[in-house]
Amino acid sequence: MNTFGRIFRVSLFGESHGPAVGAVIDGVEPGLSLSEKDFLEDIGRRKSGAPGTTPRLEEDAPEILSGVFEGHTTGAPLTVVFRNGNTRSGDYALLRDVPRPGHADLVASIKTGGFNDPRGGGHFSGRLTLPYVAAGVVAKKVLAETVGMETDGHVAFTDRAQIIELGGLSRAEALARTGADAPDHELWAPEIGAASAEGDSLGAVVECVVDGLPAGLGEPFWDSVESLIAHAVFAIPGVRGIEFGDGFAASRKRGSEHNDCFEETGHGIVAPRTNHAGGVNGGLTNGNPIVFRVAFKPTSSIRKPQKTYNLTDGEMTELITPGRHDTCFALRAPVIVEAAAAIVLADLIDIA
Amino acid sequence: MNTFGRIFRVSLFGESHGPAVGAVIDGVEPGLSLSEKDFLEDIGRRKSGAPGTTPRLEEDAPEILSGVFEGHTTGAPLTVVFRNGNTRSGDYALLRDVPRPGHADLVASIKTGGFNDPRGGGHFSGRLTLPYVAAGVVAKKVLAETVGMETDGHVAFTDRAQIIELGGLSRAEALARTGADAPDHELWAPEIGAASAEGDSLGAVVECVVDGLPAGLGEPFWDSVESLIAHAVFAIPGVRGIEFGDGFAASRKRGSEHNDCFEETGHGIVAPRTNHAGGVNGGLTNGNPIVFRVAFKPTSSIRKPQKTYNLTDGEMTELITPGRHDTCFALRAPVIVEAAAAIVLADLIDIA
Amino acid sequence: MNTFGRIFRVSLFGESHGPAVGAVIDGVEPGLSLSEKDFLEDIGRRKSGAPGTTPRLEEDAPEILSGVFEGHTTGAPLTVVFRNGNTRSGDYALLRDVPRPGHADLVASIKTGGFNDPRGGGHFSGRLTLPYVAAGVVAKKVLAETVGMETDGHVAFTDRAQIIELGGLSRAEALARTGADAPDHELWAPEIGAASAEGDSLGAVVECVVDGLPAGLGEPFWDSVESLIAHAVFAIPGVRGIEFGDGFAASRKRGSEHNDCFEETGHGIVAPRTNHAGGVNGGLTNGNPIVFRVAFKPTSSIRKPQKTYNLTDGEMTELITPGRHDTCFALRAPVIVEAAAAIVLADLIDIA
Amino acid sequence: MNTFGRIFRVSLFGESHGPAVGAVIDGVEPGLSLSEKDFLEDIGRRKSGAPGTTPRLEEDAPEILSGVFEGHTTGAPLTVVFRNGNTRSGDYALLRDVPRPGHADLVASIKTGGFNDPRGGGHFSGRLTLPYVAAGVVAKKVLAETVGMETDGHVAFTDRAQIIELGGLSRAEALARTGADAPDHELWAPEIGAASAEGDSLGAVVECVVDGLPAGLGEPFWDSVESLIAHAVFAIPGVRGIEFGDGFAASRKRGSEHNDCFEETGHGIVAPRTNHAGGVNGGLTNGNPIVFRVAFKPTSSIRKPQKTYNLTDGEMTELITPGRHDTCFALRAPVIVEAAAAIVLADLIDIA
Repeated sequence: MNTFGRIFRVSLFGESHGPAVGAVIDGVEPGLSLSEKDFLEDIGRRKSGAPGTTPRLEEDAPEILSGVFEGHTTGAPLTVVFRNGNTRSGDYALLRDVPRPGHADLVASIKTGGFNDPRGGGHFSGRLTLPYVAAGVVAKKVLAETVGMETDGHVAFTDRAQIIELGGLSRAEALARTGADAPDHELWAPEIGAASAEGDSLGAVVECVVDGLPAGLGEPFWDSVESLIAHAVFAIPGVRGIEFGDGFAASRKRGSEHNDCFEETGHGIVAPRTNHAGGVNGGLTNGNPIVFRVAFKPTSSIRKPQKTYNLTDGEMTELITPGRHDTCFALRAPVIVEAAAAIVLADLIDIA
Repeated sequence: MNTFGRIFRVSLFGESHGPAVGAVIDGVEPGLSLSEKDFLEDIGRRKSGAPGTTPRLEEDAPEILSGVFEGHTTGAPLTVVFRNGNTRSGDYALLRDVPRPGHADLVASIKTGGFNDPRGGGHFSGRLTLPYVAAGVVAKKVLAETVGMETDGHVAFTDRAQIIELGGLSRAEALARTGADAPDHELWAPEIGAASAEGDSLGAVVECVVDGLPAGLGEPFWDSVESLIAHAVFAIPGVRGIEFGDGFAASRKRGSEHNDCFEETGHGIVAPRTNHAGGVNGGLTNGNPIVFRVAFKPTSSIRKPQKTYNLTDGEMTELITPGRHDTCFALRAPVIVEAAAAIVLADLIDIA
Repeated sequence: MNTFGRIFRVSLFGESHGPAVGAVIDGVEPGLSLSEKDFLEDIGRRKSGAPGTTPRLEEDAPEILSGVFEGHTTGAPLTVVFRNGNTRSGDYALLRDVPRPGHADLVASIKTGGFNDPRGGGHFSGRLTLPYVAAGVVAKKVLAETVGMETDGHVAFTDRAQIIELGGLSRAEALARTGADAPDHELWAPEIGAASAEGDSLGAVVECVVDGLPAGLGEPFWDSVESLIAHAVFAIPGVRGIEFGDGFAASRKRGSEHNDCFEETGHGIVAPRTNHAGGVNGGLTNGNPIVFRVAFKPTSSIRKPQKTYNLTDGEMTELITPGRHDTCFALRAPVIVEAAAAIVLADLIDIA
Repeated sequence: MNTFGRIFRVSLFGESHGPAVGAVIDGVEPGLSLSEKDFLEDIGRRKSGAPGTTPRLEEDAPEILSGVFEGHTTGAPLTVVFRNGNTRSGDYALLRDVPRPGHADLVASIKTGGFNDPRGGGHFSGRLTLPYVAAGVVAKKVLAETVGMETDGHVAFTDRAQIIELGGLSRAEALARTGADAPDHELWAPEIGAASAEGDSLGAVVECVVDGLPAGLGEPFWDSVESLIAHAVFAIPGVRGIEFGDGFAASRKRGSEHNDCFEETGHGIVAPRTNHAGGVNGGLTNGNPIVFRVAFKPTSSIRKPQKTYNLTDGEMTELITPGRHDTCFALRAPVIVEAAAAIVLADLIDIA
């Protein structure tokens, strides 16, 4: 199923080297101000080009095909497409016969009886995260207007989702070496340079914090906030794990250490001072910031030779993955992780 | 939404201290042999009574209300209910006014305007995992028949899902101390005893391995195998994280360490010898066992006094949670985690 | 799929001669007053016993299994079950081998490979309309509270859905003969008596009018009000057609006759005086009453001998359908048709 | 919700005078041969230009944006878009303030708080039936390959869906006057000419017959074949009613007249000789052709002056609908009705 959500619903389509990638977003309320410009900031954050990211430079220009009239959403399905321009399919001719280790090439071929589009991973490509981010932009607008209006508050991805660990080095360590306020690609430049020099790649952990939500969003069991966010996050290629609040560390704690007790926080307000739960109890938001971390694997495509085989003749071979790749694609991921959270929360706000 | 799945669909209903809990399972193929007896083994594995689990003993007797005729499924919706017998609601009168730290009491009350059933957590109770396990039993039957027939193979939850870490102690360490083949509750008896003596509770990590699946189940993006399993797993109360294959450790590896290269495995078969991916590439099963780990928090209800307040008068108070509770509810969780995986895979088998 | 709806969602389960029939209703808002008594009136309207209906008398006593606490809905899934008591399965032993003309016996057997429950039609039985009506009761409560609160108005099934044509005789003709305000079973007594005397059965047209709805419910295309009501209405066994407003007669009109022009209706209010559209434009409610008619076929089970064959030996035979049946089951249908409309509208109100 | 279906799923988007209209079709099996050319025949059948249809001539050229590689479907979401070219939006400036009788203008404005695109009805336009027909083309291909392969048979829309009644005149009457094999627009030319001369419009009844389906498709209750086809058919703008088999006439028959008895049809095959049920029993296909009729209202836009009012100043006015319109848009509808049936059946085949 290429669709996610109940009221605010996102469908993704397209292939890496086909004519276009895009999203249809259904259930957007009418009257939201929206134009192509609104997409540019988040698209820019996902863009390649910085050290550690692929030199494939796409224009990534959004075209709104439907759902907007005179600068406002109409409530009808909103379609955004991105034409694929800078494709060098020739790079991938080889991959039809030789599956890349760590990639979907082989299973995609098995699943489709060989009818998958093998160019750049086809529909399995990370390029689909571009319309994914575009859907996140619309979701953030919904959240800002809806929750903002109702609470005089705001929905913020606090300090923006960020990379908190890369190649085993923590953000704190990297900051100590590089200086405060450095953007992620500067912060981790030495690690990336080292891996890149060896033709290798790096993984990372991305943390996302969402503040300003009302309590009570979500449902017990199937539609718990964690269930939905995890569902959306694992839709991002390359994710290996997700944890909320204390996460895996909670399994090593006692109840008396992990429970968030209610305390007086001043002016008669009683609320937990701690947030071990990551903002969710019983599947529902509890008014604290939602905090979750996502583990990204290292980029599968590397220049180091790897063992694989030829599907046609069954012969073993070594592959130096052709094409242009990120040394650490997770550097482009924080805005995608934000989009996942925003898409889920825009839907939950609509249902509440 | 109380329903999960596309073809094989599970709905859960009931309250901890209401008349019953149950499940409606839709999309079960006709002709599967099924009777009440088939549920008993897995229900037994979830049951309380062992050290570290609550002394609340329910009969947990399943009644099939619909969907079975003369010992076989009919293809019509299958309903299983469990009457609640051993309820001591008086224990919970207090909790209407005083929310338990770490529980859904407060957010449930906010969400429902105070109309939630507060007895034992109502619909938010872990007791709902009983029909959850029952749905898992049906799903396992579907998998055994469907995949078994097609592949002459089998679907196995290898060595059963098991607790691999509790209170910071690994299974290997506990085994060294206690001896091989000990059931989980014996293995961890010393840790549990220590926590229980202090009126405290413990978390744990549960690992699940599913073997015997064909390659190609799942979809890229929204319905990736990881998305669906994570969705179902976070529906289990008390889960804080999930990871597949190398999981969070993958984020600290290089691509050359994490990629599963294709190698000759004998008799002309070429396949990865490693399983860093945990059995999934690009959202699809790749023929290797699916391996994932789930982090459970420590039981929220503890006998140690915890700070909270009275919703009626706003006064701060200390709560010693009344009622009967597990010191480590994760001891009962492996069969629930298996059910989550089985429910997802029975649906994916139907769609494939 | 045994579930219908997006937010207010209804699942049906059970078999005619199994332990029970029931419904799980999800997405009910918390705080609605509800008890078993609330179901009795509509259940009574559906009940058999009057002339023209089957003498099978069930107690039809609802039991609320979940979702209600101290007389109010909790927002958790609401389950209502009806135990089957008065079953005489022996009547149906024959039908396993000899499919009844006009029934689902044969196709149910083909679809399930012979694993369907053949007793009384099993899950295909009209007895499932009992929980269907129960879901309608909850939906009507949602509509009364929701639309009532917002508009100081009301949602009414004007004069109750009623039978406007039976066996070719119009309600006006029958009324002229029988007198005003006669209940349907008295009104049509002569026609029913005549058909029954011949061991035959009758069809009818049921009209439903819903007043008091706000304008703007529904969606263009897939979720048009007509699409959803038709979907729910054709779920009722024995329906052969549905039409809205002018219905099939609209196809024989010109635009100038069919369009509802806007006119001054007094006090500055401009609205159509006519309702040829049946209360829906472009898939959305327009503030006029929703008016639709449903064609019910004659009861399939008749005492007249009918040609059929024996599935086991392939021999032709004649069948006098055993068991107890309605001469005109449509006499029991108006409350079911109301339930269909209410279920759809309760969902649309939630989404709006 | 802009999406319909469970496995074979169709989303529609676009506005009459926006950049494009289109469809995303999910769940298409891989390996289906498909190119832009495949759409041309059905698009041609829907096209305007013949007598009785609008002179707005669009190129209606399909562009496949995703889901096809080297002439075959890949199993990934299939997107088809049609750029809007020949728009004369100026025609519609007036309609922002003056709602057209019989149109969605007013309710669309109420629903969206005035943010709907009013040009040509925006998303409510019949132009959306263009991608609807495109989705039908894909569905027909799925049916042909799937059912064809399994049964050595075929799925056929027998003699193509056709107009069997227009302006009160039956096809038989029109044929007697005009001659056999005349295309619809010639057959009804006199009626159309008369209505057009008066600036008025005509309704019609379209009949669709689907042959070659296996028995057992569909589900009892919510997903009955009739429920799903009716759902899809009422998504077509301007539909007022639908009936299956004997339809409304069944309500005037006795059971002995309406039941389809089983008879020997030769060579040991026993099957009903009649098809009063229209090919469906208990919600499931029974192997007979599915037969249903759809009532279309007369075109709402007419040149005759009609009463309406100005939304801005509340003043009454008369409207001669500007723009180019069909005298009888139902002339273009048979291929749309076929698409509705095909979309439903392609999904049911996938689930079976």
